[in-house]
Amino acid sequence: MLKIAVIGTGRIGRMHAENIAAHPRAALAGVYDIHTPSATEVAEKLEVPQFESVEAVLASPEVDAILIASSTATHADLIEAAVAVGKPVLCEKPIDLSLDRVNACAARIKDSNVPIMLGFVRRLDSGHAGVREAITSGRIGDLHQVIITSRDPDMAPDAYMEVSGGIFRDMTIHDFDMARFILGEEVTEVAATGSRLVKPELMEKLDDYDTVTVVLKTASGKQAIINNSRRAVYGYDQRVEAFGSAGMAISENHAMTKVRLFGADHTESAPPLLNFFIERYDPAFAAEIGAFVDAVEQGTQPPMTFEDGRQALILAEAAIKSAKEGRTILTKDIG
Amino acid sequence: MLKIAVIGTGRIGRMHAENIAAHPRAALAGVYDIHTPSATEVAEKLEVPQFESVEAVLASPEVDAILIASSTATHADLIEAAVAVGKPVLCEKPIDLSLDRVNACAARIKDSNVPIMLGFVRRLDSGHAGVREAITSGRIGDLHQVIITSRDPDMAPDAYMEVSGGIFRDMTIHDFDMARFILGEEVTEVAATGSRLVKPELMEKLDDYDTVTVVLKTASGKQAIINNSRRAVYGYDQRVEAFGSAGMAISENHAMTKVRLFGADHTESAPPLLNFFIERYDPAFAAEIGAFVDAVEQGTQPPMTFEDGRQALILAEAAIKSAKEGRTILTKDIG
Amino acid sequence: MLKIAVIGTGRIGRMHAENIAAHPRAALAGVYDIHTPSATEVAEKLEVPQFESVEAVLASPEVDAILIASSTATHADLIEAAVAVGKPVLCEKPIDLSLDRVNACAARIKDSNVPIMLGFVRRLDSGHAGVREAITSGRIGDLHQVIITSRDPDMAPDAYMEVSGGIFRDMTIHDFDMARFILGEEVTEVAATGSRLVKPELMEKLDDYDTVTVVLKTASGKQAIINNSRRAVYGYDQRVEAFGSAGMAISENHAMTKVRLFGADHTESAPPLLNFFIERYDPAFAAEIGAFVDAVEQGTQPPMTFEDGRQALILAEAAIKSAKEGRTILTKDIG
Amino acid sequence: MLKIAVIGTGRIGRMHAENIAAHPRAALAGVYDIHTPSATEVAEKLEVPQFESVEAVLASPEVDAILIASSTATHADLIEAAVAVGKPVLCEKPIDLSLDRVNACAARIKDSNVPIMLGFVRRLDSGHAGVREAITSGRIGDLHQVIITSRDPDMAPDAYMEVSGGIFRDMTIHDFDMARFILGEEVTEVAATGSRLVKPELMEKLDDYDTVTVVLKTASGKQAIINNSRRAVYGYDQRVEAFGSAGMAISENHAMTKVRLFGADHTESAPPLLNFFIERYDPAFAAEIGAFVDAVEQGTQPPMTFEDGRQALILAEAAIKSAKEGRTILTKDIG
Repeated sequence: MLKIAVIGTGRIGRMHAENIAAHPRAALAGVYDIHTPSATEVAEKLEVPQFESVEAVLASPEVDAILIASSTATHADLIEAAVAVGKPVLCEKPIDLSLDRVNACAARIKDSNVPIMLGFVRRLDSGHAGVREAITSGRIGDLHQVIITSRDPDMAPDAYMEVSGGIFRDMTIHDFDMARFILGEEVTEVAATGSRLVKPELMEKLDDYDTVTVVLKTASGKQAIINNSRRAVYGYDQRVEAFGSAGMAISENHAMTKVRLFGADHTESAPPLLNFFIERYDPAFAAEIGAFVDAVEQGTQPPMTFEDGRQALILAEAAIKSAKEGRTILTKDIG
Repeated sequence: MLKIAVIGTGRIGRMHAENIAAHPRAALAGVYDIHTPSATEVAEKLEVPQFESVEAVLASPEVDAILIASSTATHADLIEAAVAVGKPVLCEKPIDLSLDRVNACAARIKDSNVPIMLGFVRRLDSGHAGVREAITSGRIGDLHQVIITSRDPDMAPDAYMEVSGGIFRDMTIHDFDMARFILGEEVTEVAATGSRLVKPELMEKLDDYDTVTVVLKTASGKQAIINNSRRAVYGYDQRVEAFGSAGMAISENHAMTKVRLFGADHTESAPPLLNFFIERYDPAFAAEIGAFVDAVEQGTQPPMTFEDGRQALILAEAAIKSAKEGRTILTKDIG
Repeated sequence: MLKIAVIGTGRIGRMHAENIAAHPRAALAGVYDIHTPSATEVAEKLEVPQFESVEAVLASPEVDAILIASSTATHADLIEAAVAVGKPVLCEKPIDLSLDRVNACAARIKDSNVPIMLGFVRRLDSGHAGVREAITSGRIGDLHQVIITSRDPDMAPDAYMEVSGGIFRDMTIHDFDMARFILGEEVTEVAATGSRLVKPELMEKLDDYDTVTVVLKTASGKQAIINNSRRAVYGYDQRVEAFGSAGMAISENHAMTKVRLFGADHTESAPPLLNFFIERYDPAFAAEIGAFVDAVEQGTQPPMTFEDGRQALILAEAAIKSAKEGRTILTKDIG
Repeated sequence: MLKIAVIGTGRIGRMHAENIAAHPRAALAGVYDIHTPSATEVAEKLEVPQFESVEAVLASPEVDAILIASSTATHADLIEAAVAVGKPVLCEKPIDLSLDRVNACAARIKDSNVPIMLGFVRRLDSGHAGVREAITSGRIGDLHQVIITSRDPDMAPDAYMEVSGGIFRDMTIHDFDMARFILGEEVTEVAATGSRLVKPELMEKLDDYDTVTVVLKTASGKQAIINNSRRAVYGYDQRVEAFGSAGMAISENHAMTKVRLFGADHTESAPPLLNFFIERYDPAFAAEIGAFVDAVEQGTQPPMTFEDGRQALILAEAAIKSAKEGRTILTKDIG
């Protein structure tokens, strides 16, 4: 039993806390949130201790490991603090909105052996992982093109959008990681374009985009296309397609149920897609806890590392620059 | 070039006439219909002669073969007449509503070598034939169960229903043939049940059904299930499923286009199914002309024979009896 | 928190014990199995008490309710005993292989208000329930035909087959309940046919079938077709189709993942179906515990009742008789 | 009856000749090919005259209109010559590999009223046209993103590749037109990237690519993504996806048959896709003849114009430049 404390009890932290509590090989050591009532609610519901401070979490002998689900700005500090006391970390993405801060954090923890795992949970989805497996097993031959379609069911509240760091750092970050996972090779070139179609005024104000396309290329010429939208009325659209010399593998969407309706003006109509990531990636979030426990207890490499988090951020920086300058950016010129 | 005359220029005869005219290895020798204006219209449109009588068709040296698409009551007489003058026949189903008449016809033509082909066109559908091929090639192992779903988009006019011979002889007849085609083995037992759900008053009046289920069994125990409805609002539903010891093959429906729509309350919505048999089995009807030409010119066995027509009618008779008596009927007790 | 004890810790009982333990509104009060080591293993793993006898379970003040997952022969006795001490029951199907025994049990408990829920878990599947909902909401109009395809991935060991009570009582029983659930109306006529195609010698020896088709009809003429096989190599095949005057609803199969493969000789190839009921109906089994807690704590009618269990058994008896006698059996002549 | 002569009787010209011959409102006036035996073969098979020269075609009073299916280098000259004698033209794409030549041609014919239709046949595909219709009818709201997946089943012979003009002018040209058709708005920005993955040596030698991605953007911010490969082992992959504020429409692939296979290691496996454009777009090619007849006889605007051909070439030029220079190209800077 790995005793894990959860820092941050917003929507995602709460879900992680429940998954830890339900996991046969993990125990919820307690929770903390700077917003005390939120932590109290979770602590009472799950019948676990509520810590009074981050320091209390770090110091507690009842805490084997820490899951960081607090606001992005706190991630790097918490990682450094946890590493300093030797407690393994499972940290929600992104590590930080600033690549400099991430690089500084990397420098500080580079001599440590404390396991750090990044919450790029989609790698643990059975469909997306199945696409990766179709590649590594040779079933689709040499990989040529990857298409990642990733659209949120709706935009977050304006207040969140203002601090999100922009679509590339906040939303595409997951797809950058997915592209790296599927490509199996580092990206060398990034070309991005953004539009303001969903909420043009807000996007204009924030100098951000709500609809983007990013094309990535590796040294060997493999291409990955990411297309994002902040709002898909039919639900959370999450598809991954890998095309190769010997075939293709596609990870398809998940509808709310497996019912198909037929009527006078339609056939095979399925319900909307699962909405939103907590529902869609529910089994992957549960698997994430198991993978973290494995990494800590068996000393195996976490499936998603700090370096994966850093690389995804490099791609985000490159995409931002590319969209602004209207040209392809070489990743070696970033970071 | 096989010169084929068409007797009967109703909806189906007209389609056959056009297919013959367009076929690279067939020529339309002319048309005849007891309703003269109908034949005139087709003859003028396709620029072919209009015959003045059945006798003229039979006697014409310009006619190599005859396609019979006139009303059911004339089929057996016309087959006998064509055989008498040595002209090959492609006859629309059914041969006759009366099994006795069919048996008499069979007796009269049994010493002839004139090719006779029955219009069980569905055997030539690439999907249904693909299911059969999956069986004969061994891909699904030993066949265990067959499910044939066959629903018309709507009921024919009342006037037609009154002379149709009832659902089993008129509509299920195609599915009986399909069952025999897929089973690859004669049916020994028939259990049928009928309901009056679409047009109860009319069905009551005609002592007929609009919704039926028939279960067929062969000597070796293979089962085939046929389900029919006279009205499916989503279009012409034509599916064949074959289940075996090593797998399953399904021939799927054909929607009007390959467009899928996604909206706030549905995903993957396709348009209604092709409506009706002329659209759905269009390529099969064209292939039917080719198969007939082959049978006549190369002396090969037609893919659908007079005997196939007789066997399907035996199953229809058994089904009628079974639905009435509420018990399984042995086909050896029919005919 | 409803404290539930589990009697019977075989494969199904174990799964139920885990679901109870994980349920936010239920607690696992302990387990019992006549085979002590099996119960010990579960008790230790889930850290709950192991009861020494059925009597101890019945007498324990720590036990609010009982889940019966022991062998079929014990079900009726345990139900009666639980009712006698006022403890609500969630009982795996079937109640008993003998309709007489079930009727006797019904008579004994008929004056009791103790909630009894039957384990017809498929009613709680989101797909099948969605089909039912499409009917009750009027989306497909008046119901005309139901097709239930239900095939196990493989046959149980011979030893089990010998005590199973035969395919109709053991396997089709679930489909009889599903047919009643979807039809929303009692079945009046049953016509069944059976074949021996998967394991002919064993079936011959047991006077049983491995491949069956059952056609059910209600007083208003609605038809339901059930087709079963004891072995489908592609996995656990569980489909429900409801056809009505205004459309159709289909509950589709669940493949192991959502990956589709394309290669030189195939496209859109999905993996085999989830195998077996514990995987396929996993969310439904979890929902079953919740529904039981609701029924007990809120006094609502359980979604699957003792009477549902009795009616399904009547259909099984009718099917057995029909398959033997080759005729349609009226349910009013059974039981 | 519009009497159409076909110039060029290679694979495509032959197909057009057959379609014209079979069309109820068109007649094949004769054929010509610089390679005489090819024209002779088609003329004899279809029983039509063989012209001795282009001049003979242009001069013939038996020729109402001309279909140009000869080599690309002859297209512009033939268009100009046909316009000069007042004969309407249906010309295969592209008009020419040189934008300068196309512009010169445009200048020469700009005062003529002779109908010119370009062979961008995909616009007439029921699926792709259905996607367009979903947009114009408002069913998917404001259009935001378009994804066009277009992969050939295999590379043409090396000899053809050497004169093709490169992937953007030869293959993507169709997708550029499709993008314009679906977007319904001119493209202002083009960003392209190419890789050499299928036949690297040949591509290197020709300074061409076999795997490309192009991102297009309109003034209002609509995005279109095109991805091409010269070789897809599973067949001719032709998909169009349009994503908008109120939904999504997808035009799906066409498999060889509608059979789905299920076995021990796969489910729902369909056959490979129709291979190649003549099979896949067969109904669209037939519709193209009808649309051309309409345009000539009724004086309606052809659905695909000379200007459509010119605009597609502008996008190709922009893509070539973008792929070389690694930056976004504005279409206003081309041509």
